[in-house]
Amino acid sequence: MNTLDKRANELDQADPLRTMRNQFHIPNGLIYLDGNSLGLMPLTAAAKVAEVTGNEWANGLIRSWTDAGWFHLPTTVGDRIAPIIGGNPGEVTVADSTSVNLFKCLAAALHLNPDRQVILAEGDNFPTDSYMAQGLAGLVPDVTVRYFESHENPADCIGDDVAVVLLSHVDYRSSRIRDMTATSKAVQEKGALILWDLSHTSGAVACELNNANADMAVGCSYKYLNGGPGAPAFTWVNQRHAASIRQPLSGWLGHAAPFDFSREFAPADNARRMVCGTPPVISMAALDEALKLWENVDLAALWNKSSEMTAFFIEAVEQLCQGHNLTLASPRNNSERGSHVSFELDGHGFEVMQAMVARGVIGDFRSPSTLRFGFAPLYLSFQEVLQAAQHLAEILETREWDNEIYRVRGAVT
Amino acid sequence: MNTLDKRANELDQADPLRTMRNQFHIPNGLIYLDGNSLGLMPLTAAAKVAEVTGNEWANGLIRSWTDAGWFHLPTTVGDRIAPIIGGNPGEVTVADSTSVNLFKCLAAALHLNPDRQVILAEGDNFPTDSYMAQGLAGLVPDVTVRYFESHENPADCIGDDVAVVLLSHVDYRSSRIRDMTATSKAVQEKGALILWDLSHTSGAVACELNNANADMAVGCSYKYLNGGPGAPAFTWVNQRHAASIRQPLSGWLGHAAPFDFSREFAPADNARRMVCGTPPVISMAALDEALKLWENVDLAALWNKSSEMTAFFIEAVEQLCQGHNLTLASPRNNSERGSHVSFELDGHGFEVMQAMVARGVIGDFRSPSTLRFGFAPLYLSFQEVLQAAQHLAEILETREWDNEIYRVRGAVT
Repeated sequence: MNTLDKRANELDQADPLRTMRNQFHIPNGLIYLDGNSLGLMPLTAAAKVAEVTGNEWANGLIRSWTDAGWFHLPTTVGDRIAPIIGGNPGEVTVADSTSVNLFKCLAAALHLNPDRQVILAEGDNFPTDSYMAQGLAGLVPDVTVRYFESHENPADCIGDDVAVVLLSHVDYRSSRIRDMTATSKAVQEKGALILWDLSHTSGAVACELNNANADMAVGCSYKYLNGGPGAPAFTWVNQRHAASIRQPLSGWLGHAAPFDFSREFAPADNARRMVCGTPPVISMAALDEALKLWENVDLAALWNKSSEMTAFFIEAVEQLCQGHNLTLASPRNNSERGSHVSFELDGHGFEVMQAMVARGVIGDFRSPSTLRFGFAPLYLSFQEVLQAAQHLAEILETREWDNEIYRVRGAVT
Repeated sequence: MNTLDKRANELDQADPLRTMRNQFHIPNGLIYLDGNSLGLMPLTAAAKVAEVTGNEWANGLIRSWTDAGWFHLPTTVGDRIAPIIGGNPGEVTVADSTSVNLFKCLAAALHLNPDRQVILAEGDNFPTDSYMAQGLAGLVPDVTVRYFESHENPADCIGDDVAVVLLSHVDYRSSRIRDMTATSKAVQEKGALILWDLSHTSGAVACELNNANADMAVGCSYKYLNGGPGAPAFTWVNQRHAASIRQPLSGWLGHAAPFDFSREFAPADNARRMVCGTPPVISMAALDEALKLWENVDLAALWNKSSEMTAFFIEAVEQLCQGHNLTLASPRNNSERGSHVSFELDGHGFEVMQAMVARGVIGDFRSPSTLRFGFAPLYLSFQEVLQAAQHLAEILETREWDNEIYRVRGAVT
């Protein structure tokens, strides 16, 4: 047994979360390093979905809005997410997609900061963040989107016209973590509000929204939270804004009394005002069930395991793949790196990832040249991390990737 | 056998759709007249949801976005809805909630009609329609919402400042049908666009969007389309607007090339530009499966059955419940009435509906005094219609409703 093998075994044996993987369906032989795109299915999710469909819907029908708690899902599911992101009960709602929630929060921030009309956004953020800001700016005269580039410090780009700064806590390509406390403070000192996108954070990386005194946050529940494909997204609002925040997607389920059927909208007096229309209950139920797994998770151990896994992967790849022009595109310092690791590989990155997939190691490729590997600390083992690096080394060494079957591109990458 | 019984039997025997009810799970002993709030579960939906969860998600994981067709669900499911509402393939997308889609379409209409800034809305429409218009008007300076009252003709209320008129095709309380062709024409002749809400139309009432030359439409898929609780809603856009329409919820899945990850939003060159973020796949799949039932449905027979059922219910109630102060609150003329029937009952309407529910007859109560009964023509029998009227008569005759257990109100009514 070589040194890396030995280390992987030791790390697995010392892992306090090592039994959590038994709670998930892991397809036979698959090394799944794409939990940052779509998390594994918790074993209980299938039964939950069957119950909601085959009983709550089929038998309970309209009565289940009350009897099965459907009506309260946006807040009950939100309360399950709150501790994972450093929020308190009553602060998180689950509804709509991350994109839609970004729109709500950006508009709400402009309303809270009415003398300023610029949205400051990361030029290299995940595109939908920019697109939603652009959509809002295209709709509301005088509102504009200003970008800062990755070499710039966002706080340095805040003039007295910036109402809100939209940042990803963990960068979707590089995995770089922004210091939430320091950045929130610097942004607020310049008179702007801070909106965090936690899509690559929640469930894998330490996050303390209240301790950081952030203003708002949104995030995705189908990645490290394992809520299922397209599971509804979450929104967090700092309690100090709860009574004054207004968002324009003011649908009936955000109303203070939705079944009074009054003509004028009056927002709920709590976070529920961030909810808009009727939630997709079956998808919500799968997420609800997935989140029950978190009740017994030692979060500090989880954040630590994430760091250890990504560090171990970097070490293994750099040792095993020497001479193949892989360049680490993620921070080397543990405290600055989220739960995925990116390597740049010019020229044949797409083909290499396809060859990995063919071997049963699933990561993803981000155009033009990024190989991205996500490490869900809740269910992965260090042995899997090492095996992934070994497969990568073999594919590069043998040029297995250099085959026309790996050049075909689909609609989704 | 009395005359009404005989008629019910004859109508059931002559019903060309009578075997369709075998495709649905009908809880034992339940007479379900709330398919206009949440439709019954198609028997195939449970298996579909199990497959999507336990195989496509569990085993396929991220690959299912391509391999299981998840990526294309907004348009493939939309294409199944198109013929039911008089649309063509490629014109309908399924995404988000009806409320969110109302916002998209209202904003898109203002963009298409840039010299006008008033949204003309029905004062008595389903509240979320008004709330979404209010949310948009609160966000965009100079945009306002103007209401017309139910005794007014909307076209008479259109000045040269009205950009778009938002109307429900079938009124959620009274069931009154608006003439889609005549109204669309009258609105357009005044220089405004017409946006139809088909929530109480689609799947129960004849609707020919293209023949009526409408501009846009949205609607709900969990009522007569049986898509499951909170199933994603649909949006239809007239082909003449397809290339020019812009909507502000411009998320990455409405982008022309979402996986290019470009910074600037560029809308898809088709109806997909109405899509925003990642769809809730499990809920979408249930809807997709439910819509397969429609491939063999004779739509003309369905629309006719809807009229016959509601007419028969009115006749039975008026005959059996004489002297109990029930007042028909729906049009008596078949061609003016949708697929639900409302009666006003002052003072104890809520309690009467609770007593009906206790007997296994589920309709709903709409504050302050409306008893509403929905007749899904796809799966109900005329015998059930008659039995519902008989239960209502007995409850009124014996004052069974006058019991404290029927006075308790829940969060959802």
